[in-house]
Amino acid sequence: MTARFDVVAIGNALVDVISHESFETVASLGLELGSMSLVDADRVAELYTYLAPSTEASGGSAANTIAGVASFGGTAAFIGRVADDDFGHIYAHDLRAIGVHFDAVAAPQGSTPTGRCLVMVTPDAERTMSTFLGAGTDLDPTYVDESVIGDAQVLYLEGYLWDQPAAMEAFRLAASVAHGAGRKVSLSLSDSFCVDRHRAAFLELIADDVDILFANESEVLALYQTDDFETAIKHVRGHCEIAAITRGADGSVVITADAVIAVPAAAVDQVVDTTGAGDLYAAGFLYGYTHGKSMETCAVLGGIAAAEVISHIGARPHVALETLAIPHLT
Amino acid sequence: MTARFDVVAIGNALVDVISHESFETVASLGLELGSMSLVDADRVAELYTYLAPSTEASGGSAANTIAGVASFGGTAAFIGRVADDDFGHIYAHDLRAIGVHFDAVAAPQGSTPTGRCLVMVTPDAERTMSTFLGAGTDLDPTYVDESVIGDAQVLYLEGYLWDQPAAMEAFRLAASVAHGAGRKVSLSLSDSFCVDRHRAAFLELIADDVDILFANESEVLALYQTDDFETAIKHVRGHCEIAAITRGADGSVVITADAVIAVPAAAVDQVVDTTGAGDLYAAGFLYGYTHGKSMETCAVLGGIAAAEVISHIGARPHVALETLAIPHLT
Repeated sequence: MTARFDVVAIGNALVDVISHESFETVASLGLELGSMSLVDADRVAELYTYLAPSTEASGGSAANTIAGVASFGGTAAFIGRVADDDFGHIYAHDLRAIGVHFDAVAAPQGSTPTGRCLVMVTPDAERTMSTFLGAGTDLDPTYVDESVIGDAQVLYLEGYLWDQPAAMEAFRLAASVAHGAGRKVSLSLSDSFCVDRHRAAFLELIADDVDILFANESEVLALYQTDDFETAIKHVRGHCEIAAITRGADGSVVITADAVIAVPAAAVDQVVDTTGAGDLYAAGFLYGYTHGKSMETCAVLGGIAAAEVISHIGARPHVALETLAIPHLT
Repeated sequence: MTARFDVVAIGNALVDVISHESFETVASLGLELGSMSLVDADRVAELYTYLAPSTEASGGSAANTIAGVASFGGTAAFIGRVADDDFGHIYAHDLRAIGVHFDAVAAPQGSTPTGRCLVMVTPDAERTMSTFLGAGTDLDPTYVDESVIGDAQVLYLEGYLWDQPAAMEAFRLAASVAHGAGRKVSLSLSDSFCVDRHRAAFLELIADDVDILFANESEVLALYQTDDFETAIKHVRGHCEIAAITRGADGSVVITADAVIAVPAAAVDQVVDTTGAGDLYAAGFLYGYTHGKSMETCAVLGGIAAAEVISHIGARPHVALETLAIPHLT
């Protein structure tokens, strides 16, 4: 079935404010290492005053995935909310500059600002995030563009949307529209803390609405409340059509009804910043999936994209992933 | 003579919007490779639509130098103008987070926005810049904080200020205040195109008001309208107390009344983005100068700072320069 877009995603539109911080700083701010916390406008402003000089770059989990799909040469669309301010302008630019369809109407200046995520990168290349959703708080079912969703092979949703009731409703509507149009629905579990917050809802959602599940090892363990990976694999098999589970330096495992396919990680000279690793894995996988590649090739493309993004600061590709993918697409 | 600050700088407060562009893109936009052009609000918006996804980071030539001085552990202040918008907030944060004194009153929201510089990095690691001064256009003598300037060992000024008559007046006033307080005045020639625009004024200024001159080879050649470096050295000697001339991979040369001291460049694994090389050289030099180091050590510190900043995207240090300087400060 032909489609205008390979992938359409709904997610929080966030500008990443990226700084290098010591373990001591993260601890002294009362943040759990490696976690993502939602904070309000006052708290994000307060935290920011304690942080080192930063660089800013468009982020947001699902939007990073979409940027990755476009970087592979795929066709992609993003649905999210920004404001009419500096951050909103760079956000829209960074998507449109790579050909992503993004026509969210910006909230006027002086209203809630564009969302931002303080990304504190510690010396272990791990990131701890404090997110102020800003204009993204207004993401609700009225922003679900049914014509776009119906015209994309895969709908991609980030688990973080579950943190906002209105966004959760948008998520449910979008999934229903996609399935009504005969499309596939994919979900990223986002992080293990997010899974802890929404376990019951996620389990039900995966059973009812999710065709392709993305998670890392700690997220899938959290989902099934086990500390044994094999047990988690057993649970997830049959729970959804495809589950792609990333395992950091150990690569990834794709679980389908028929097979469990393990693929080693792509080589990385130096891991600089793990932000976006999962997002970009999903990008490579979905690019492969929407271009009829084997599960193994999908996982390899995911690994290539993840390896690129963790080799530098920032959660979006610095090179055209298309060029890295060529040897695997013959 | 004791001073609260090692260095105070006056410059254009600009957020860098950094993207990787092909030579073809730069040429098709009608820009001269390696140049800095001033553009208005409409033109910067138009250019931006043609550019690749970008990352944003605080920049501005003199402010980069000040950030470098602070990174060496020096005390520093910056005078420049931002607006009360996202870019203004990150700009102030990035200076204050490293202890730089910066108390410019921000222009209110809805007025002229914070200035920005589109930094197009080409595959040769050279950068071509299009600058919209924004709120910086309002930098005039009323912003010259005489108490701060009188309490800094060295006043540092960027040649780019000469592009705006009001800023030029601020520049002249600041130099007069500094000399009145028995302080030193230093000037960066900014770029050879800037020298071409303001040659006569710069020659007069250097003779009358500048104690320490920073320039790269092409700037000093442009200043004296010669293509022979030895001839340029002869001219600059006696023209000001100290001239520190950078020569890219060939290191730098410091010219005083008594000596010409050549120092090789610090090693760099890979030159990624030359933006900020001259700014950071000045930072290292001035840190050494304000801490009583020899001319040779000043030049070595300049080289270390320049080498760090060209090894990554962005014009400010990614590591504490203090740690890199330790072996040279025993």
